[in-house]
Amino acid sequence: MKLLDRLRWRYATKKMNPTLKVSKEKVERILEAARLAPTSSGLQPFEIFMVNDPQTRERIKPIAWNQGQITESSHLLVFAAWDDYTVERINLMFDLTNTVRGTKHEGWENYRAQVLGSYPQRGAEVNFAHAARQVYIALGAALIAAAHEEVDSTPIEGFDPVALDEILDLRARGLRSVAILALGYREADQDWLVNLKKVRRARDQFVTEI
Amino acid sequence: MKLLDRLRWRYATKKMNPTLKVSKEKVERILEAARLAPTSSGLQPFEIFMVNDPQTRERIKPIAWNQGQITESSHLLVFAAWDDYTVERINLMFDLTNTVRGTKHEGWENYRAQVLGSYPQRGAEVNFAHAARQVYIALGAALIAAAHEEVDSTPIEGFDPVALDEILDLRARGLRSVAILALGYREADQDWLVNLKKVRRARDQFVTEI
Repeated sequence: MKLLDRLRWRYATKKMNPTLKVSKEKVERILEAARLAPTSSGLQPFEIFMVNDPQTRERIKPIAWNQGQITESSHLLVFAAWDDYTVERINLMFDLTNTVRGTKHEGWENYRAQVLGSYPQRGAEVNFAHAARQVYIALGAALIAAAHEEVDSTPIEGFDPVALDEILDLRARGLRSVAILALGYREADQDWLVNLKKVRRARDQFVTEI
Repeated sequence: MKLLDRLRWRYATKKMNPTLKVSKEKVERILEAARLAPTSSGLQPFEIFMVNDPQTRERIKPIAWNQGQITESSHLLVFAAWDDYTVERINLMFDLTNTVRGTKHEGWENYRAQVLGSYPQRGAEVNFAHAARQVYIALGAALIAAAHEEVDSTPIEGFDPVALDEILDLRARGLRSVAILALGYREADQDWLVNLKKVRRARDQFVTEI
């Protein structure tokens, strides 16, 4: 199965070659995988910011432990989750569903009422935490898609999200940064991790059958 | 690109045919994709419970909104995250890394000290929230792998996690349930969602280039 081979091939690339660019076609397919990723109730409660501007990347680097991939990667994707599930956002996605499907579905409208009757009342922090989890499905889809394209990637949590929100002006958009995915090509002779074995717990310490 | 085709093909299957079983080989490859999924610092802070016992599934169903996939799916995977990042758990994974790689790496040991010096002190709720996010990468990997195998799946968040923790006795293991993935084969003529279009926001409402 090629997918497993790709998952074995990938690793969190520590050193990228800044002169090698990922083609637009590949980047678009990686973004498309993230866009197609499923989310709870189909709400897609996040956006992706592709930071191409070198100066903005330079500003991000020091608030991300000075990780080189921030500036040396070919493409830098910032995943930012909704800061809350609001009535407007929920309705936007349910309305879009009706538009795309060209029909109203009674069960779907009942479900809309149920979501509207519970999510907005849970509070912004609970909702952001829920939205942030959905980001990780798309992050996973994007890094699998990158591996599928033989593009290296580094998922990055090591940054100051409040500082990143300020740099990208995310709070004004009702968003909060959650994760970064750097895309590019490994500089193998300068990457300490590239030749080290992948480490995972054995299946019997990972899966329990009941 | 086949991966995108598979992502377009998949959907949250609402009605599964209880007589069709997913082969052991496919299930193992789906589990392997989840096992290979990357996690923050490689800690793999979760386990998967594959609930084969019909009586246990019957007990789960009422605390999961009586969703039919709980009992009608071929295989039912419960993803349970660590309730905390403890010193023991962190050391277990760093020690495993040294064992697998057959070497100690100074930078890696410095990183271990850094993680040990920060994670356990953050408190269990912060750590569980962080671990739960990692689950979603593996959930994403598993459902992409399922689609790759032409196996239907339903990611399920709609359940009472406290009740599920009790049914599976997860808290005694230091775990908390986060998500369910039902695997099986669609019963197309009884599935209201199967022929409805997939709905996602357009790329220009999802990706912003800076």
